[in-house]
Amino acid sequence: MHSVGRSWLLITGFILFYVIYLLFGALVFSSIERPMEDKMRNELEALKQEFLNLSCVNDAALERFMVKVLAANKYGVSVLRNSSTNSNWDLISSMFFANTLVTTVGYGHTTPLSDTGKAFSILYALIGVPFTMLVLTACVQRIMFPLVLAPVGLLQRSGLEPRLATIVHFLLLLVLVVLCFFVAPAAVFSKLEVSWSFLDGIYFCFISLCTIGLGDFVPGTQPRQPYRPLYQVSVMVYLFVGLMMMFLLLRTFHKIADLHGLTTFLQLPRCEESDMEEDREPMVEDGHKDLTEKKAIKPLEPGSQPSYNTMNTG
Amino acid sequence: MHSVGRSWLLITGFILFYVIYLLFGALVFSSIERPMEDKMRNELEALKQEFLNLSCVNDAALERFMVKVLAANKYGVSVLRNSSTNSNWDLISSMFFANTLVTTVGYGHTTPLSDTGKAFSILYALIGVPFTMLVLTACVQRIMFPLVLAPVGLLQRSGLEPRLATIVHFLLLLVLVVLCFFVAPAAVFSKLEVSWSFLDGIYFCFISLCTIGLGDFVPGTQPRQPYRPLYQVSVMVYLFVGLMMMFLLLRTFHKIADLHGLTTFLQLPRCEESDMEEDREPMVEDGHKDLTEKKAIKPLEPGSQPSYNTMNTG
Repeated sequence: MHSVGRSWLLITGFILFYVIYLLFGALVFSSIERPMEDKMRNELEALKQEFLNLSCVNDAALERFMVKVLAANKYGVSVLRNSSTNSNWDLISSMFFANTLVTTVGYGHTTPLSDTGKAFSILYALIGVPFTMLVLTACVQRIMFPLVLAPVGLLQRSGLEPRLATIVHFLLLLVLVVLCFFVAPAAVFSKLEVSWSFLDGIYFCFISLCTIGLGDFVPGTQPRQPYRPLYQVSVMVYLFVGLMMMFLLLRTFHKIADLHGLTTFLQLPRCEESDMEEDREPMVEDGHKDLTEKKAIKPLEPGSQPSYNTMNTG
Repeated sequence: MHSVGRSWLLITGFILFYVIYLLFGALVFSSIERPMEDKMRNELEALKQEFLNLSCVNDAALERFMVKVLAANKYGVSVLRNSSTNSNWDLISSMFFANTLVTTVGYGHTTPLSDTGKAFSILYALIGVPFTMLVLTACVQRIMFPLVLAPVGLLQRSGLEPRLATIVHFLLLLVLVVLCFFVAPAAVFSKLEVSWSFLDGIYFCFISLCTIGLGDFVPGTQPRQPYRPLYQVSVMVYLFVGLMMMFLLLRTFHKIADLHGLTTFLQLPRCEESDMEEDREPMVEDGHKDLTEKKAIKPLEPGSQPSYNTMNTG
């Protein structure tokens, strides 16, 4: 019980630190990029006025104007009247950007303009990406029992053959994830975003949760979005929990692949074994026989082996 | 030796199939999106002419024009004269897009316009992303020996304490990867791309190899790029090999974290053990003691256990 308490303390610490890290990133990005954005916006406005003051437009003038407009647009600064009210680098938007960096989704609907911003992005992601993966892995480790091990056990006790139970469970989990993290959010997004169809919603959820993040659809970027900060925070939470579920699916699938010999067949690494004390008891005792035959031993304590367990082949 | 031969056959098959899969994606994307792109380009050109024919420009007309221009730009269709010669959906560019999808980099400098294109993107990534991860993992598995196990063995034989050897090796590997996959490519990109500084190059390499892929810098998109297809293929190869090296670094780091007790301390899963036959001999024989004490047994044959090795807790 003591170990379980420490485990929850650890995960709470992780998530707390994750939020603080995002806030810290948001503050730095906001303070670096906001002045650059304002400057670019003012320049673009001046250029637009100048362009309009020309009594007649010729091709060359239009071309020059468009070059500037599109360059600014690349960094998320739009010439349109509607969008000029929202900054891309207010605190919540900066946090949203920081979040897309560390989860490696990277929509790129806003990107750092200044060299300082770029350098900071590199540094920030260098620490943030591994840390986010660590937090996600730690969370998945904790939800493995209620969402995978317990239901599979239940299915087995209800009379299903063990291997079949794992497959039935995986399919049920898959349906659950698709419904809760693709279909339902897509329905919500297609309601909240004026120009999104349901397919656009599904496309956004999929492209986001695979961390592809093309950035052609980003929620909360339409002009005069009501409750914009709240909406952006919700999307961040959705992304985090969604990624966690994707990790869980992947790990469950990996375990099934181990079980059915797929990983061995393709000569790929097996899914890592859990290090939790209570998970160590083997289910089948005749594993001993295999063991003495092939001498494959998993080191139990860190450092019980002086080097990588696979190093003796060198 | 027979097993080694099969291993190389498998990896060659994987890579071959990967290239074929990219080509197939390129063909489909190209055939779906090219007509849409041409249509949009023509519409934009007509709109531009119409706009220019107005003797004098007013704010409302400009606004309407800009809305269209920026919407088209979002999908990678530019109003500028220079850029209109290159299609975003020729075969090589489509392959580049398919590559950014399956590696989850997702620059988003071009995105599917049509609903068919979006639906196909989802389907394509659904198969392509896990498959790419599989190919990368399989490749990393094969380069573990020459790049990690052999050098660590060498360092140990030269008299270094085993744990120290792993750390020295990791640092050397890190320097090598930074030099070959960040500094050198950044220098090349800053030469080849007119508007990129060296920092931009480093920023691009980093954002790409972390699979963030913001898309503010994408090689080979400048107008009149010489040898554009060759350049794009080179970038694809760079991305693949670079990602492989990032996976290798990550796995080496995970092994070190195991060895130094970091994963156990943070209650995270240990790095998976290799399944290769030749890697199974333990380095330290007293591992046996731990084993009989705690009965932690790694199942050797797939299916020797009827269910997940951690399932008995359920």
